[in-house]
Amino acid sequence: MDVQRDPTVLFPLMHGGDLGHARALFPGAPEPFIDLSTGINPYAYPLPDLPGELFTRLPGKEGLWRLAEAAAGAYGAPSRDHVICAPGTQILLPLVARLALPGHAAVLGPTYAEHRRAAALAGHHAVDAASIDELADAQLAVLVNPNNPDGRIVEKTVLLGLADALSRRDGILVVDEAFADVMPAEASLADATERPNVVVLRSFGKFFGLAGLRLGFALAAPRLARRLQAQLGPWAVSGPAIEIGTTALADAAWQDATRARLAEAARRLDGLLVGAGLTLVGGTSLYRLTRSADAAALFDHLGRAGIVVRRFASDATWLRFGLPKDEAQWQRLAVALKTRG
Amino acid sequence: MDVQRDPTVLFPLMHGGDLGHARALFPGAPEPFIDLSTGINPYAYPLPDLPGELFTRLPGKEGLWRLAEAAAGAYGAPSRDHVICAPGTQILLPLVARLALPGHAAVLGPTYAEHRRAAALAGHHAVDAASIDELADAQLAVLVNPNNPDGRIVEKTVLLGLADALSRRDGILVVDEAFADVMPAEASLADATERPNVVVLRSFGKFFGLAGLRLGFALAAPRLARRLQAQLGPWAVSGPAIEIGTTALADAAWQDATRARLAEAARRLDGLLVGAGLTLVGGTSLYRLTRSADAAALFDHLGRAGIVVRRFASDATWLRFGLPKDEAQWQRLAVALKTRG
Repeated sequence: MDVQRDPTVLFPLMHGGDLGHARALFPGAPEPFIDLSTGINPYAYPLPDLPGELFTRLPGKEGLWRLAEAAAGAYGAPSRDHVICAPGTQILLPLVARLALPGHAAVLGPTYAEHRRAAALAGHHAVDAASIDELADAQLAVLVNPNNPDGRIVEKTVLLGLADALSRRDGILVVDEAFADVMPAEASLADATERPNVVVLRSFGKFFGLAGLRLGFALAAPRLARRLQAQLGPWAVSGPAIEIGTTALADAAWQDATRARLAEAARRLDGLLVGAGLTLVGGTSLYRLTRSADAAALFDHLGRAGIVVRRFASDATWLRFGLPKDEAQWQRLAVALKTRG
Repeated sequence: MDVQRDPTVLFPLMHGGDLGHARALFPGAPEPFIDLSTGINPYAYPLPDLPGELFTRLPGKEGLWRLAEAAAGAYGAPSRDHVICAPGTQILLPLVARLALPGHAAVLGPTYAEHRRAAALAGHHAVDAASIDELADAQLAVLVNPNNPDGRIVEKTVLLGLADALSRRDGILVVDEAFADVMPAEASLADATERPNVVVLRSFGKFFGLAGLRLGFALAAPRLARRLQAQLGPWAVSGPAIEIGTTALADAAWQDATRARLAEAARRLDGLLVGAGLTLVGGTSLYRLTRSADAAALFDHLGRAGIVVRRFASDATWLRFGLPKDEAQWQRLAVALKTRG
C-alpha cells in the first residue's frame, strides 16, 4: 500500500489526553481542566528520587535485564528473554506488525485506531474485523484485550484456538493488553508467549499512572523478541523509565491495592453516570463507556464546565469517562452531570 | 536480506558506556570506575526540577512542537516542520534507512557500526565505503560528520555535491551529526534539509551530557519528516525529555560556554595522551582517538586501574578517550598513563 497516499496512515488520529486541543475547543471553560479523556490511572505510582546518573549515563544492559525480569514476573511471561522493553507500546505497533509477512491484517473493531494505521504502515492490507472468526484467516490478527473502549474480554481458550488457526498459515496474533492489569490475571496471554506466533503488548504508563515516562513491553517468543530488539537498538528506554519501571513492577502490594482502589472508583463513577441517565456500555476499572442519544451535547456541556471526556468518530452516542483523581474533581463532575441540559 | 540469518543484524554490537561489561573484564579494579569509553559530555546540562505531571501525563502535541521549534533554532533547520523528535537517534536509524527504496546502502567507514546494521535491517544490501566517491551510486548513503571515532569532517560543499548526485537516482543522503555541536556550525547540513533527499541526525544526549534521557532528532524535508513521524507515533518522546530538551536547546549561553569548556578539556587531554607517547589520530572535543602499537596492553593497564576507554575491532592500534569529569578523574588518568608498561 502506498502510505504516502493514505492520509489515515500518515496523519494523527484523534486521541485522548490532549488538553491543548480541549482548551482550543472550550476557551471559556474554568481552569484547571479535568482530563477524563484517557484511561490512565490518576493515582500514580509514587515517584522515587531519581539520581542524576539515570539522566546522564547511557542506560546499561544490566538495568534493562532487571527491568525485563521484573516485567516477566509482573505480567507472567515465561522469562526475561520473552520481554522487550520499549519507550511505550505505541512505537512497537509498526515493528510488531512487521513481524508478519505483508498480507491481510485484521483488527477486531471497534478499538484503538492506531493498530490499523500501524498495520498499514507495515505494508499490510489492514481492515477492521467484526468478529473473532474474521481474524482467523489473516496474516496479522490484532485485538485489544480487554478492549478499548468497551472493555470486552475475549476468553483465553478462544484466543489460544485463534493462535492455533493462525499458526497453520504462518499468521501472527497480537494481543494488546494495554489495560489488562485490571482484568483477572488468568485472562492474559502473557504465559502463552512460548508459542512462536503470539505477541502480547503491555503498557506500563496506564495502570501505573506514568504515561509521560514512556515505557511499554512486547512479550513474545525469544526468536520474535530478538527481532524486535534489533529494530529498537540497545538504548530505547530511558534511565528514569528503567529505574521506576523495575521498582514499580516488583511492587505487588501497590499493584493489589491499586486494583482495589480503581475498582472502587469505577463503581463510584458508574453511580454518577447512571444517576445522570447515561447507559453503561462497558469499560474497565480505568475507564467507563456510556451511551446516550445526546452524547454530543453532553460532551460540549462537560467541556464548557472544564471537563474533557473522550468521544468517538465511530459512534456519536458513545462517551468514555476516565476516573477523577481527587474529591474536588469528583464534585465538579457530579455538579456538571446534574446540570446537563 | 534474511535478517534472521545475519548475526550482525540481530545481536548487539560492541559499544562504549557499558560499565557492567568493564567490571566483568576487570574485577579487581578500584571503584568507582572512570568511564572514558563514550563521547558523552561529562559536564551535563543542569537538571531542572521536574514537576510530577511530566511523568504522569501523556505528552501533548504543543510540548512537542515547542521542542521541535527549539531544535530547529539550535541546529539551524529551516522550521519546526523539518524536525522529528525521537527517544534518541538510535531508534531512528532503521526508520531513516527505510526512507530509501531497498537497494544498495553505503556507509562511509570506518564509523559507528549501527548504521550498517540499521541499513541491513531496513532491507538494504549494506556495505562500508572507503571514500565519498563510493557513496554516490548508493540508494542510501550514510556518513557521520564529524566522524566517530576519528573526527574527520567532510566539507559542506562536498556533501551538497553528493546530495545532488544521489538525487539523480532517487538516492537519500543521511548525515549523522551526533557530535556536530562541537564542530563549526557552518559545516552542518541542517540548513540544507529543504532538499528532498537529505536527512540529518542530531543527538541531544551527547553534547548536553544527558544520554540517559533518550532524546534525538531527525531533520528532513516535511514530506520525509511526516513519514518518520508516522512510524514513531504521537508519544515517542517522554515528558521529562520534552521539558529538558526545550530548555537546554534554547540556552545558547550554556551551549557556547560548554563548547569552550570542552575544547579546553580536549586540549588538556591531548597533552596527557601525547605526553604518554600516544599518537593523536583525530577526534572532536568530546573524544580523542589515539594510535599506539601497544593499544591492547594499554587498554588492559587502564582497565586494571579502573579506567575504561574504547577499543575498536576494526583497528587494534586505536583507543578512543572521552573527557574526565573532575580533577580526581584527571589525576587518576594522569597517574595511570604515567605507569603504563
